[in-house]
Amino acid sequence: MPKISDKGLMMPESPIRKLVPFSERAKKAGRKVYHLNIGQPDIATPASMIDAMHNLDIKVIEYSHSAGIHSYRESMCLYYKSHNIDVSPEDIIVTAGASEAILFAVQSCLNPGDEIIIPEPFYANYNGFTISAGVVVKPIISNIESSFALPPISEFEKAIGPKTKAIMVCNPNNPTGYLYSEEELEVLRQIVIKYDLFLFADEVYREFCYDGNVHHSVMNLAGIEENVVLFDSVSKRYSACGVRVGALISRNREVMATAMKFAQARLSPPSLGQIAAEAAMATPASYFVEVIQEYKKRRDTVVTMMNKIDGVLCPNPKGAFYVTARLPIDDSDKFCQWLLEDFNYDNQTVMLAPATGFYSTPGAGKNEVRISYVLNVTDLQNSILCLQKALEQYPGRIL
Amino acid sequence: MPKISDKGLMMPESPIRKLVPFSERAKKAGRKVYHLNIGQPDIATPASMIDAMHNLDIKVIEYSHSAGIHSYRESMCLYYKSHNIDVSPEDIIVTAGASEAILFAVQSCLNPGDEIIIPEPFYANYNGFTISAGVVVKPIISNIESSFALPPISEFEKAIGPKTKAIMVCNPNNPTGYLYSEEELEVLRQIVIKYDLFLFADEVYREFCYDGNVHHSVMNLAGIEENVVLFDSVSKRYSACGVRVGALISRNREVMATAMKFAQARLSPPSLGQIAAEAAMATPASYFVEVIQEYKKRRDTVVTMMNKIDGVLCPNPKGAFYVTARLPIDDSDKFCQWLLEDFNYDNQTVMLAPATGFYSTPGAGKNEVRISYVLNVTDLQNSILCLQKALEQYPGRIL
Repeated sequence: MPKISDKGLMMPESPIRKLVPFSERAKKAGRKVYHLNIGQPDIATPASMIDAMHNLDIKVIEYSHSAGIHSYRESMCLYYKSHNIDVSPEDIIVTAGASEAILFAVQSCLNPGDEIIIPEPFYANYNGFTISAGVVVKPIISNIESSFALPPISEFEKAIGPKTKAIMVCNPNNPTGYLYSEEELEVLRQIVIKYDLFLFADEVYREFCYDGNVHHSVMNLAGIEENVVLFDSVSKRYSACGVRVGALISRNREVMATAMKFAQARLSPPSLGQIAAEAAMATPASYFVEVIQEYKKRRDTVVTMMNKIDGVLCPNPKGAFYVTARLPIDDSDKFCQWLLEDFNYDNQTVMLAPATGFYSTPGAGKNEVRISYVLNVTDLQNSILCLQKALEQYPGRIL
Repeated sequence: MPKISDKGLMMPESPIRKLVPFSERAKKAGRKVYHLNIGQPDIATPASMIDAMHNLDIKVIEYSHSAGIHSYRESMCLYYKSHNIDVSPEDIIVTAGASEAILFAVQSCLNPGDEIIIPEPFYANYNGFTISAGVVVKPIISNIESSFALPPISEFEKAIGPKTKAIMVCNPNNPTGYLYSEEELEVLRQIVIKYDLFLFADEVYREFCYDGNVHHSVMNLAGIEENVVLFDSVSKRYSACGVRVGALISRNREVMATAMKFAQARLSPPSLGQIAAEAAMATPASYFVEVIQEYKKRRDTVVTMMNKIDGVLCPNPKGAFYVTARLPIDDSDKFCQWLLEDFNYDNQTVMLAPATGFYSTPGAGKNEVRISYVLNVTDLQNSILCLQKALEQYPGRIL
């Protein structure tokens, strides 16, 4: 039997999914499992998107243009305009989720062995895309004590070497919910100019900002128009993860022409998803007002309850729908597995994502977990109560 | 401005798309362009698929399981059963078209620098997926004189070296339409056993067999169950290219576990497409009878008319909906561009795919073109008449 590849061996299992067999077993044993581990919102997809499918008026479900349906890309430009971002359809390649956009960017911009700096903790799947391309992630640590703010410029400069080709950020951040300030983006701008790096930015949570805070896009950083590559997606925005419609966006002509060759090789992004996503442009502003209000309530519930638990540190993030919290535990992988295997409170338990999977520095995140607040407030209250009881009983508790 | 990657520079432009700017110009100039260059069928998508969207009854368009919706994978097993292929849902990962399945297989099974043997001409996009993974294609030539039959075993053995890890075939073949016989598959089986290679097979045109010929799947080759990886797609089968639903199928547990990690990194295949594809399982057998009859008529039209043209050699393929034909021309890239730029017959012209893009041996395919017979018989008649007139006038004609 021929051997599988070294990359295949290197690929990590998803921290969100590796505990699934344990949660399945807990459910089979009759326990209720609250899923705080996943990024699948429970919010209803806008009716306009479902209606677009109900009213589908085509005879053949054809390939779209490899860069995406032109009218959809035009409508995206209007959407970005409303967020003070000026782009034209030529700056956009529609992709199968932001995932494919990241893959195209890494393949188009970096050689095997090149290095990309990412503040950690970071979205675990970035590992998959960099391993695919043979690219090396150089993590620099964001500290929970400073709520996971951007590391200081000196940390970037320590990590930059002759192989450094890009910096990647997620803003608002998954898994920390941290929203970068204008000043922090200015720091990034200066480093990018000084070392002539690509700046990759994942802004799929753009709308999800709380407490009156405003999102600032890397697309508006002056003087680095040729360096910036943006990843976007309608998945979280419209609670429509299953349409698999994202985008790679850049004003760098060479990057776009190169990414386009990768896009042509896979022929087309999903057509049905694009038709739904174009229809989503008709979503009234009130949809977001309500959704943001709902998420804010959820965040407040989680953060308030978490910080009341003895030994827990839970920053109060300004964006996205995640918190990364420090728990008084020995090992978050063991703890999260124990929650599913050996614990119940009133026949209920919680599924969390161990933060170890969001760090690439070995040993980091062992006392942290990511919580997605994608359940309603009552379920969240029950979940955090469960977690509190679990921390009281967990044999690996550290005080 | 930072430089793009070496892979990006190496990526070829799609042979199907590189002439698009010229066809756009021809259309703007008021000429009718017959598109024989693309693999987008004009056949109506089964009503069951469109109806599934009309009747969509969900509130949230969620991620599916990373391996695909379980009920869809179960229905796929029944479909394969009806084609005498025994697989279980665990042998299937649903992908964004066959494209993504090929990418996962190459990444999971081959290291950068490893070699894969592919009979040429071959589907041009295989280049993109192998370049992405840093894998080297070793082509062995199929001859037009033998209608593009599988090269003899001696040719494979000449190409096999210490870096050879896999053989890849497309059956029925794109771009030649060639359908491999049981004897030819037996040759592949023996080589695969002797050298312990992976055998990748793209069988997306399985249904499209003519003149009473039967498709034989690599999944039924005895003794190489752990070596075989199958790529499949509903795109051509149901004329539903835009749903982006394919599959990677293998009985090799290690390959599946590894591919699954790549599948998890991109989260989910398109959910709407999968719902449509599952509904397609209700397509009556009469759909295929009619479709196959229609394609057979088209093939007969093209092959008969082509072989009447002076200096043309056009094999009569038994499968898929492509022919690769030899023309009395100096350079197929030049000729195909000339057709769009400088030629018209009755204000009409044809767009063909130069075969050079389907060969990786430099200079091969310079007097060949691929024709997709995805237009109705009348349009095909007009197209081939156009081509005949063009060949009479083309300045680079070679006799």
